[in-house]
Amino acid sequence: MNFAVTILGSNSALPAHGRHPTSQVVTFHDRLYLVDCGEGTQLRLSENKIKRSKIRHVFISHLHGDHYFGLIGMLNSFGLQNRPQPLHIFGPAALEQIIRVQLDAALTQLPFPWQFTALREGVPQVLLDENDLVVQAFPTDHHIPCFGFLFTEVHRKRKLDPAMAQRYHVPAAFYPRLQDGEDYVDEQGNRVSNDKVTSASPAGRRYAFCADTRYDERLLAYVGGADLIYHETTYLHEDAEKARLRYHSTSIQAAEFARRAEAGKLLVGHFSSKYESVDPFLEECRPVFAATELAREGATYLV
Amino acid sequence: MNFAVTILGSNSALPAHGRHPTSQVVTFHDRLYLVDCGEGTQLRLSENKIKRSKIRHVFISHLHGDHYFGLIGMLNSFGLQNRPQPLHIFGPAALEQIIRVQLDAALTQLPFPWQFTALREGVPQVLLDENDLVVQAFPTDHHIPCFGFLFTEVHRKRKLDPAMAQRYHVPAAFYPRLQDGEDYVDEQGNRVSNDKVTSASPAGRRYAFCADTRYDERLLAYVGGADLIYHETTYLHEDAEKARLRYHSTSIQAAEFARRAEAGKLLVGHFSSKYESVDPFLEECRPVFAATELAREGATYLV
Repeated sequence: MNFAVTILGSNSALPAHGRHPTSQVVTFHDRLYLVDCGEGTQLRLSENKIKRSKIRHVFISHLHGDHYFGLIGMLNSFGLQNRPQPLHIFGPAALEQIIRVQLDAALTQLPFPWQFTALREGVPQVLLDENDLVVQAFPTDHHIPCFGFLFTEVHRKRKLDPAMAQRYHVPAAFYPRLQDGEDYVDEQGNRVSNDKVTSASPAGRRYAFCADTRYDERLLAYVGGADLIYHETTYLHEDAEKARLRYHSTSIQAAEFARRAEAGKLLVGHFSSKYESVDPFLEECRPVFAATELAREGATYLV
Repeated sequence: MNFAVTILGSNSALPAHGRHPTSQVVTFHDRLYLVDCGEGTQLRLSENKIKRSKIRHVFISHLHGDHYFGLIGMLNSFGLQNRPQPLHIFGPAALEQIIRVQLDAALTQLPFPWQFTALREGVPQVLLDENDLVVQAFPTDHHIPCFGFLFTEVHRKRKLDPAMAQRYHVPAAFYPRLQDGEDYVDEQGNRVSNDKVTSASPAGRRYAFCADTRYDERLLAYVGGADLIYHETTYLHEDAEKARLRYHSTSIQAAEFARRAEAGKLLVGHFSSKYESVDPFLEECRPVFAATELAREGATYLV
């Protein structure tokens, strides 16, 4: 079962040193979810040979341009390419007007159905429940309203123990109902309690995109224990004061957050343009949280 | 005296085949004028090592996204780079709201002074008079209000004939006033008629950017005789009907327009993404108008 994230843009603020503004594609089975959409994202999709028809949902964390200026161009191109697939965009409320005013100015009617859902400020919320995957938003600590996104794999079925089910003489045709949590009752009225023949579903994998944020322990409640956490590291440790003033985080803070969150792995990105090489980020993170990886554009990280 | 145009983007509609949406830089002496600003223009400026601080004026032809989606990102980056130089943006009226709604959403105050001038629909108009250069807008025939831009070099001074001035005993200190068109009157009251010692200013060079348009002979009145005409050629001749329906032009039409305009040279661009190679455009244009060049990204064409 494929669950991964591909980095399209890893830089903050503006493109520099061959790095681009924020965008990621989350792959779950054969569905794609776009997270943020900095300028040029449509070109990054092409370069990385990502099937744009499989993107049905776009999540925009906040309205700093390096996280969404590529959205209108991507929508426009989807239209010119006569995309038929629907698209659902989630983002801060003002984004809808920003999209519509630009479509209106061009007299553009997108040929595919699209809808917009405004994120509610300051509260965690479920955005999408697709049976096997749930996407939630949670607020982060940034200069303007900003949201992280949590992708949670969901196993709805209880785990069947076939040996026990046989031992209790449950007919195989009833197994799906056992997985749904039902007890089995035979013709004589004897009840087999569900928990004797099944166990709880295994916990689903979780990917947490923590967007732009200061170091904020309140986020642990949303993303603690995630298999993979993306946390921004705009600055190195020496610029901790600058990070605080600008509502960003440092390498050490990202690593410390992952350590406290007991994350499986940490992915760091959103590097300031002041750094030509990003290797020092890894050198600062790993002593605090060993399982750290740098977000490299074009690379895919398994959840 | 440098007067040239550098192509940053030569494709129509969307980026494809390594080509990008429309943007050009007009260089006049050491000043730069940006004409259209498709998505990614800020990256094209970097790649072509164009000094962004020297851009003081931006002209947006119309509000199809391939001509302006890169503007907000460029403005944002100018701000992040603490640009001090003022910037004057000219474009269709709705562009101002499109810019402001995005700056407002990010709580962004650009740190440099900028102003916006809305183009008046359907009429030719002078946008800028910088003494040695005048920029005018003129309406083109497109699906939504669209403007071409004419850059005219201006020689304000009459051309002095020093031999004749000496012959009429005009003192050298008076020469600048001769160039301004004054007659010379000596102490005895003898008048030397200006046209005896000067001749008319030489005509300035002209660059006409004809934006997106159907073939439209009304434009000849604005750009006839220009030294360099940029005319779109979205389609080859075989797609003339498609061009007409979509308010665009073909190769043959662009060449025919340049021929009728008695242009010095023709530059063609805005190629449809359906064409991987653009060489056939040249093959179709040159039999009609020999002095045709393809707009190649990164190349500079003298006016």
